[in-house]
Amino acid sequence: MTKISDIGGEQALIRHINKKIKTNPDEVILGIGDDAAITRPPKQGKNLVLTTDMLVENSHFSKSTYTPFQIGRKSSVSNISDIAAMGATPKHMLISLAIPKDITVEYIDSLYDGITEETDKHNINIIGGNITGSPSGALVINITLIGETGKEIRRSGAKPGDCLMITGDLGKSSAGLYILQHNPKISKKTKDTLKKAHLEPQHRLKESQVLKKLSCITSMNDISDGLATETKEICEASNTGAIIYKHKIPTSPATDELLKAIQKDTKETALYGGEDFELLFTAKKQDTKKIIDTLEKQTGTTATIIGKITKEKQIYLIDKNKKTELKKTGYDHFKENPFDYP
Amino acid sequence: MTKISDIGGEQALIRHINKKIKTNPDEVILGIGDDAAITRPPKQGKNLVLTTDMLVENSHFSKSTYTPFQIGRKSSVSNISDIAAMGATPKHMLISLAIPKDITVEYIDSLYDGITEETDKHNINIIGGNITGSPSGALVINITLIGETGKEIRRSGAKPGDCLMITGDLGKSSAGLYILQHNPKISKKTKDTLKKAHLEPQHRLKESQVLKKLSCITSMNDISDGLATETKEICEASNTGAIIYKHKIPTSPATDELLKAIQKDTKETALYGGEDFELLFTAKKQDTKKIIDTLEKQTGTTATIIGKITKEKQIYLIDKNKKTELKKTGYDHFKENPFDYP
Repeated sequence: MTKISDIGGEQALIRHINKKIKTNPDEVILGIGDDAAITRPPKQGKNLVLTTDMLVENSHFSKSTYTPFQIGRKSSVSNISDIAAMGATPKHMLISLAIPKDITVEYIDSLYDGITEETDKHNINIIGGNITGSPSGALVINITLIGETGKEIRRSGAKPGDCLMITGDLGKSSAGLYILQHNPKISKKTKDTLKKAHLEPQHRLKESQVLKKLSCITSMNDISDGLATETKEICEASNTGAIIYKHKIPTSPATDELLKAIQKDTKETALYGGEDFELLFTAKKQDTKKIIDTLEKQTGTTATIIGKITKEKQIYLIDKNKKTELKKTGYDHFKENPFDYP
Repeated sequence: MTKISDIGGEQALIRHINKKIKTNPDEVILGIGDDAAITRPPKQGKNLVLTTDMLVENSHFSKSTYTPFQIGRKSSVSNISDIAAMGATPKHMLISLAIPKDITVEYIDSLYDGITEETDKHNINIIGGNITGSPSGALVINITLIGETGKEIRRSGAKPGDCLMITGDLGKSSAGLYILQHNPKISKKTKDTLKKAHLEPQHRLKESQVLKKLSCITSMNDISDGLATETKEICEASNTGAIIYKHKIPTSPATDELLKAIQKDTKETALYGGEDFELLFTAKKQDTKKIIDTLEKQTGTTATIIGKITKEKQIYLIDKNKKTELKKTGYDHFKENPFDYP
């Protein structure tokens, strides 16, 4: 194991990391190594799409459960997911790290390998960053991701009557976190499936690009803070309400198995659990068949209608013909213990 | 004093902050409030300039010496300084915060006031961000700043024979830090001047824009890690060496007074002290008079020739006719105690 000071400190670490990084010379004029990076503007007629996301140790991840590769990968995924949620294409990434003293060069290598697994796959240029010490001992990663798009898909375009739809299934990341924390007695296969869903989440960039091409998605969000919160965000931005049919919320057999074993409601986990990175979107009823079929055919990913957008502003949950107003939302960093199970 | 949970948590805090933020509708299509922001591309013929910088409590600042306003302002200044060092114009900012539990809404208000003092002054749009908890108790701020430029000024353009020049004076930020740490016996006026230089540093954006217009600056860096380090960076990028005349390095009367009182070499502080945010640049000898005169006339800021670029790769310090190779560089986060006086 090599200390950062052993290889010559901050500047040597930056040179070491730079060796891992490939950029496309048609897009990047000047990469890492000056006071700032220079890139070409987006293609004619396209605008810039920009997002930033900070992952903090013991809030978004724990070093005892995540490998450094998984931490790096997750930080890439959460940013790509935000760009996907706009129907945009990611292009350039800047990475800031606050590194505690005990972190080794090998640890940083592995963390960067996690980041670059995603950036290499999606032709994202790593063009800059910042490395600093972390006297508090907490590892902090901030990623800024810049993309481009012609016409973006906003949260605010949902119209009364639109169907509310979701890719994949929900609650799996929360279920995986529960297993890491409580190690309940269920099959090893289910445990492994759910732990992987939490530690190695998937973004839906490819699905987003297929949806975008269909030109009929009226609004979109990614599920980072749970279905309840994300639905609320779409409704507030669109000045609408919504009805969610609880039994229609898709959950996986593994999630169902865990929640049954611990005698909890699997659909509640799906409603309030974060970090599934699925896409929540709306479309007119007549477009839903085309959406479901095309997405399945081109990506293998399912899309499910889970509710509809209403003129009335409230969000209601329909559970076996019982209609209740949905007031609770997902995780809040300033209200809850980060590692509380939702 | 209001707790963040008192106003309703994370989402309420974001809404509260958003009220402070103005963006230019000609440049920003979609600001804070969706998964990502949308901005127009840079003006025809211009490229994007991108930088990111993370400030970590007890490494870059201490809450016991900096007010929240000063912390926010410093995080703006260090990023603007990087864009200035490229001869570019800052346009859009994204801000990530990791906030410890005990931080109040009033503290965040003041921190944002510090950030926006600089962004408002320079018409920089705050277009996005991320707020999260910080279980370790350390306040962390990451700012990404995006600008635009036609032809940038790189580190790599210095040529043998060019003069090495600096704006303003050096060592004042380090001198201010020494006063905050050791409270030496010197005049209150000098103490206040130097503390202010450390706590409220100035970037040189205006000066950078004047220099850019002169079209004769061959390379440029900002002084964030000390003159020795920044000179080394220009030389390495330009494949040159340099000679620095120690007695020519500009220092202020206040810095001189402190260093004399504590019996240390004022020029050493200027060489190795960071965060002065002055511009270090190179130009042909015949252009230096025009540079010095124009800068003085248009900004009131002095420029000083402190050395020259050489074909020979080493960097030498000339001190009273004694020539020594400059090997030591400035601050390194992985080698030194962050609050050691350089």
